[in-house]
Amino acid sequence: MVAAKQYDLVIRNGQILTLDPQGSTYPRGDLAIRGGAIVALAPDLPGRGATEIDARGNAVLPGLIDCHMHETLLRGFCEDLPLMRWLEEVCFPIDRAFQPRHQHAAALMGQLEMIRGGITTFIDIYRYPAEAAAVAERSGLRAIFSPQIVDDPPGPGETLETNLAFIREWKDRVPGRIFTWFGPHAPYSVRPETYQKIARYADELDVGIHTHLAETLDEVDGFRRRMGQTPVEYLADLGILSNRLVVAHGVHLTDGDIALLARHDVAVAHNPTSNMKLASGVARIPDLLGAGIRVGLGTDSNLSNNNLDMFEEMRTAAMLQKLARRDAGCMPCEKILRLATSDAAACLGMADIGSLQAGKRADVIIVDLHAPHMWPVLSGPRSNIVEQLVYSASAADVLTTIVDGKVLMHDRSVLTLEAADIEPLVQEAARDLVRCAGVDGPR
Amino acid sequence: MVAAKQYDLVIRNGQILTLDPQGSTYPRGDLAIRGGAIVALAPDLPGRGATEIDARGNAVLPGLIDCHMHETLLRGFCEDLPLMRWLEEVCFPIDRAFQPRHQHAAALMGQLEMIRGGITTFIDIYRYPAEAAAVAERSGLRAIFSPQIVDDPPGPGETLETNLAFIREWKDRVPGRIFTWFGPHAPYSVRPETYQKIARYADELDVGIHTHLAETLDEVDGFRRRMGQTPVEYLADLGILSNRLVVAHGVHLTDGDIALLARHDVAVAHNPTSNMKLASGVARIPDLLGAGIRVGLGTDSNLSNNNLDMFEEMRTAAMLQKLARRDAGCMPCEKILRLATSDAAACLGMADIGSLQAGKRADVIIVDLHAPHMWPVLSGPRSNIVEQLVYSASAADVLTTIVDGKVLMHDRSVLTLEAADIEPLVQEAARDLVRCAGVDGPR
Repeated sequence: MVAAKQYDLVIRNGQILTLDPQGSTYPRGDLAIRGGAIVALAPDLPGRGATEIDARGNAVLPGLIDCHMHETLLRGFCEDLPLMRWLEEVCFPIDRAFQPRHQHAAALMGQLEMIRGGITTFIDIYRYPAEAAAVAERSGLRAIFSPQIVDDPPGPGETLETNLAFIREWKDRVPGRIFTWFGPHAPYSVRPETYQKIARYADELDVGIHTHLAETLDEVDGFRRRMGQTPVEYLADLGILSNRLVVAHGVHLTDGDIALLARHDVAVAHNPTSNMKLASGVARIPDLLGAGIRVGLGTDSNLSNNNLDMFEEMRTAAMLQKLARRDAGCMPCEKILRLATSDAAACLGMADIGSLQAGKRADVIIVDLHAPHMWPVLSGPRSNIVEQLVYSASAADVLTTIVDGKVLMHDRSVLTLEAADIEPLVQEAARDLVRCAGVDGPR
Repeated sequence: MVAAKQYDLVIRNGQILTLDPQGSTYPRGDLAIRGGAIVALAPDLPGRGATEIDARGNAVLPGLIDCHMHETLLRGFCEDLPLMRWLEEVCFPIDRAFQPRHQHAAALMGQLEMIRGGITTFIDIYRYPAEAAAVAERSGLRAIFSPQIVDDPPGPGETLETNLAFIREWKDRVPGRIFTWFGPHAPYSVRPETYQKIARYADELDVGIHTHLAETLDEVDGFRRRMGQTPVEYLADLGILSNRLVVAHGVHLTDGDIALLARHDVAVAHNPTSNMKLASGVARIPDLLGAGIRVGLGTDSNLSNNNLDMFEEMRTAAMLQKLARRDAGCMPCEKILRLATSDAAACLGMADIGSLQAGKRADVIIVDLHAPHMWPVLSGPRSNIVEQLVYSASAADVLTTIVDGKVLMHDRSVLTLEAADIEPLVQEAARDLVRCAGVDGPR
């Protein structure tokens, strides 16, 4: 009689960082998965899995969570322009020309890159969500789609009605893995009555809201001149501030704004690379954290980043605050790693991911500690694994990516999407979009 | 009769960025090497090489040049401390305990990482240069060793005499590839008479000088209080400013300092990651460039960076200036790539590297453009290869590294150093150093 396999999957011999509330670690541990959930963690776990993965002493940690991104197509296109010229001459024409076929290619490219970089959950605020969600159904990633709603001027498929139609179609299609939210673009591009309708619908449908807020000083100053209040005060008056709301950026906030966000338990997605690259400014992350606000990290998009490397995002988040606060001790790496895992899960209101604990969904990554740029790996009280992950690693060091117990990448081979097929498709879609947008002339 | 091979090595089918003064590119080109030098570039180059490499449409560019680094051993050790605590509790005890066996391991680790990241030339200012130079002899990298001289207090092997002895022993040992300079640590740790002697010896021996300068505000303020002048004014009075001198950091400079550096043709090695991570400040790079000062990029070390990824350094250099100048158009990527190649070569006074031109030494790298995070690759007037290299790539995207026409890494396999042997050696040396320095207790 053959003994039954107790587990679907067991990862053995990992240096496990659980990111649980106590920060528990297993310097040499095993992790067992059944039914898409973590069921046990222990050194030398007895029993067998239908599949067994040898982590070879590498780091085992929760999958990374990207709290703000757009699945866009044209990476590295017309860089280094001043912001307004970039928006008007590049982004807006591309945006107007953007079609579902471009979104399909963008989602394939983005999700392939995310799996390769150890991102297991992302929230996308862009266009044609059904195209992107169909890719997520196939890629295996956990995703929130909050399609962008723009009132002035509305692009195709960017209305409250199309957002509602998407929610109705997709809300229960892939339960627990694909989520449908509202994505009002920003206070300066969405009418107050739309925000108010969204707040009511979100309660009714029990879904979240994702919006841009206070990204640049020009935007905030202009808003204050026109409206006589800050964008945060304005959203507070509209009654949209709640724990359903995740705001992206929040760079230029007053003390009063921070108090309002804290009082209403609004979460903030911080995008340090984008904020630096677009010269937006430095978000007051230590002040937000001090006020008890939930914060997670985001990549923003490959238009503004230009990759979806959450390791780079962690490193940049740490360095940016150290520089801005003139304190090399600011934002220690343990906290930074949480902003991409456990704190990021809290930011998105997802209680069942973000840490490796029995009962949580099995979103797990294995990261190479044997690459030369990760040496030396020290153990004991001076263990430096978190330091190596935050300050030395890159997306390329992720060996294995698992979501809901399903292996999406193993030893750098992506199993759910076929890179060789996607590359020519992305190339052709990008050329087509450049042509359609009429931005293919000389610079 | 078999036709003779005209070339030692030909790289075919690359998207060649020459970084020559005109910025010439070959969208599909071949590059031929003979006797360690580049001898021809052309589309469909006739003739044959003893070795032929198919670049498969990937980017072919000059090897990257790290203009300031220390080959240190303890990466990710006791991070996130305020600068003075970090120096006094961590760096100084480690520095005192550092032995030649630690330098041997550090050099193996560092040079392995550099080859893997497409760095072909580096300048190291640290300890026991003969240990590190012996590793460079074997690794095949091009290197300048400017061993650090510290007067107050002098550590073992950190005197003018040991520097001179090293120069005598190594100056002509590996001609054209291993260079020996002077490395006076900094104006606050080296006596004026030592600087003056070094200036004379450097002229006599025709070698360069590398020193730290104006890294932190505390350092510069303290120096001004004690000495009544800025460190740059002080070095000018000592007669040490010349085109032989490369200063590291140069973060806190007055307009007068910049004018002095420009007048004496002093070069500056800019270390943006280190400057952010240690909260040192923002170097005035656009002002330095505006004054005609030669500038190159450096990683500083794995103590302060924590990797030796020049792609990350390029990206950080761009983003830091965009943020500080509140101008997303500041420091465009074409200029940034030069700071790591052709401008970096000028910074180090090496006229025969930094660009791909007939007659230059054959220091060449091939970088993957087929990885998902490099998509899409556009051609024609909107070619975005430089954008993808600077804003999306990482060290892990380097496929092939060539120095003096010798292939040091091909398709990610390093040929001159054996990673599997070096890993345990580095681990043991690191543990030994922690023990010797007495910093192995709990934090």
